[in-house]
Amino acid sequence: MSVFDPFFSADAQNFRTSAIRAFARLINDPNVISFAGGVPNPDTFPAERIAEIAARVVRERRAVALQYGPTRGLPRLCEFVAELCRSRKIDMGADRIIMTTGSQQALDLVAHTLIDPGDVVLVELPTYIGGSAAFFARSAEMLGVQQDDDGIVPRSLREVAARVRESGRRVKLLYTIPNFQNPSGRLMTQQRRREVLEIARDLDFLIVEDDPYGDLLYIDADTTPMKSRDTDERVIYLGSFSKVLAPGLRCGFVAAAQPLVERLEIAKQAADLCSGMLDQSIVDEFCAAGELGPQIEKVRAFYRGKRGVMLDALSEHFGDSAKWTSACGGLFTFVTLRDDIDTAERVPDAVRNGVAYIPGGPFFVDGSGRNTMRLAFAKENDDRIREGVRRLARVFES
Amino acid sequence: MSVFDPFFSADAQNFRTSAIRAFARLINDPNVISFAGGVPNPDTFPAERIAEIAARVVRERRAVALQYGPTRGLPRLCEFVAELCRSRKIDMGADRIIMTTGSQQALDLVAHTLIDPGDVVLVELPTYIGGSAAFFARSAEMLGVQQDDDGIVPRSLREVAARVRESGRRVKLLYTIPNFQNPSGRLMTQQRRREVLEIARDLDFLIVEDDPYGDLLYIDADTTPMKSRDTDERVIYLGSFSKVLAPGLRCGFVAAAQPLVERLEIAKQAADLCSGMLDQSIVDEFCAAGELGPQIEKVRAFYRGKRGVMLDALSEHFGDSAKWTSACGGLFTFVTLRDDIDTAERVPDAVRNGVAYIPGGPFFVDGSGRNTMRLAFAKENDDRIREGVRRLARVFES
Repeated sequence: MSVFDPFFSADAQNFRTSAIRAFARLINDPNVISFAGGVPNPDTFPAERIAEIAARVVRERRAVALQYGPTRGLPRLCEFVAELCRSRKIDMGADRIIMTTGSQQALDLVAHTLIDPGDVVLVELPTYIGGSAAFFARSAEMLGVQQDDDGIVPRSLREVAARVRESGRRVKLLYTIPNFQNPSGRLMTQQRRREVLEIARDLDFLIVEDDPYGDLLYIDADTTPMKSRDTDERVIYLGSFSKVLAPGLRCGFVAAAQPLVERLEIAKQAADLCSGMLDQSIVDEFCAAGELGPQIEKVRAFYRGKRGVMLDALSEHFGDSAKWTSACGGLFTFVTLRDDIDTAERVPDAVRNGVAYIPGGPFFVDGSGRNTMRLAFAKENDDRIREGVRRLARVFES
Repeated sequence: MSVFDPFFSADAQNFRTSAIRAFARLINDPNVISFAGGVPNPDTFPAERIAEIAARVVRERRAVALQYGPTRGLPRLCEFVAELCRSRKIDMGADRIIMTTGSQQALDLVAHTLIDPGDVVLVELPTYIGGSAAFFARSAEMLGVQQDDDGIVPRSLREVAARVRESGRRVKLLYTIPNFQNPSGRLMTQQRRREVLEIARDLDFLIVEDDPYGDLLYIDADTTPMKSRDTDERVIYLGSFSKVLAPGLRCGFVAAAQPLVERLEIAKQAADLCSGMLDQSIVDEFCAAGELGPQIEKVRAFYRGKRGVMLDALSEHFGDSAKWTSACGGLFTFVTLRDDIDTAERVPDAVRNGVAYIPGGPFFVDGSGRNTMRLAFAKENDDRIREGVRRLARVFES
């Protein structure tokens, strides 16, 4: 109890600190092989090019790169993002793009603009913590929808949404990450995407389609966003440069219908006036120079090997004692262990054995998933990945 | 009416687009002498140093400058900001600092953390549009408090707050900009600050003290923040590097009591995970190198001359037909014309005559101030300032 308690808003009373941040703090010890951190590997950042571009835009265009800018974002970058969307088969113009301070801000602005306290938001089981945090922060009620290896299970989605409707309430939106989801690493099939969109139309809710990992694919796979089939504009598409360029440059975007983008713009004006103009100028120059494509290829090659090493090591050390997702893209594989294992309880033991992971429980809004864990293969080199999985196996043998 | 209308939150229905942005669009014509834009002059940005530092931190510290960072901000920068606060006589440690994506984000996080729909927020008459926008976006009720040339009028503050209390509601907070306020350019006297703080204690509300302009002072004046006398930690102090360094680097901060900073951190985690790490790294290096003090001196010298030219021109051309604030610091003087003049109506006429300003009305939450206008002296050179004021006088003569 502090003197501030009587002053906190109802939302603030709902704020939840990220359950995984506590675990992230454990992993600064170099003797611990870490599969915990969900962040990209700095070796993938094109630092030399960013350094050159940064110095140049500041010297040559200080009145843009160091000044306040338009709330919607640097116009040429918005054009580029619209083109990027079109390359993903999304019919999109720059007038329906708004740049955001990372795609986390996109989630926050969408939540502020659409969610009233008690509104129902459907999320995948498991789902991204930052997504649920943004909706919790608006006092939404989160209900979980089952996933299998093909993505959201349509029957589960329909059941949950129908149950909400029967109770006299409504589902405002479904939050989904169809491409290489954090934390599950799963890719939703195109058939499932069609079914999910159809259910959203039937039961009249919106879809927030978060796609930060779509470019990080390691095998041939169809990552076409749902937004490409969004004939009645109910899909709000979020993208990001964090995983293919660098997250320290806070640069994400929303592509959505005009009336929504107009409201998001007002929300963003109140939220931070504009996103960093140096960051946007750097991303803009990098993309305008045609360097994004080759950069994405480099990033894919970088993670593809690590992913293979991890999957092989899991096969070798876990065999039939666990299941894990195939991580055709993204940064994660998600491991399901025997029902009676509680991965959160084993964290201290794992760290003592020199390996770290994120227990899966916090990613499930329904309290399930205690026997799961998220393994990120972004950080460690091949030898350490093999050794880390060996240590993990030892932890869970006992 | 759009398909989205049934989905918008109650907050989104309260969103107000900035009334001054419409005017800002008028001023891209180089033939129009502009006193409208409230932004700093790019000539004050230390571009060469920023370019060097940016390139260096990206090359040498990509794992910090280009990576996700702590939600509270770069630790050494938080230490520097705490020291900056102490230099302003505020007793402050780095554990009570949180860096924000510009101080606009600080306003947004404070509003989210403290304001429920219908809560009363007191603001100055006039007040900063971005401040009222952040509170409107949480469906707050804004009530105005009178200012005179010494700042907030204590009697008015006490009356308005008491009236709210009598109506069975409470004031959550007062939003104030004591140093060279946007838009009025006024400096609140230390005596008034003491009285305002005393009233806040008596009637138990919080104070958000926004101080982006305190370093931009042009004559000897006491800018000591209220926060320096905040013995019961009810003042939330906001600062920014936007006016002394560069706003395109979105870098502001909150200094406040520990329990509040903890909640703000959770709100920020959901809002954008962290502020731009390249921006913070640049500001951090610039400050650590001891360059902030000399930079502030340069910026003061730059604006001091312009301010003098504008005040002289106002004396020459407006004489007794208007009153204006003395702008001992900051970027603005605020002009009050004859009661029957509506400055908003005269904008098209002014632009035809080759001069632009921001009408004062939108800065007053009570609908008053129609005979006022804000003049920014940041952008134009001395000759154009003189000529612009001459044109203004012609517009208002008729």
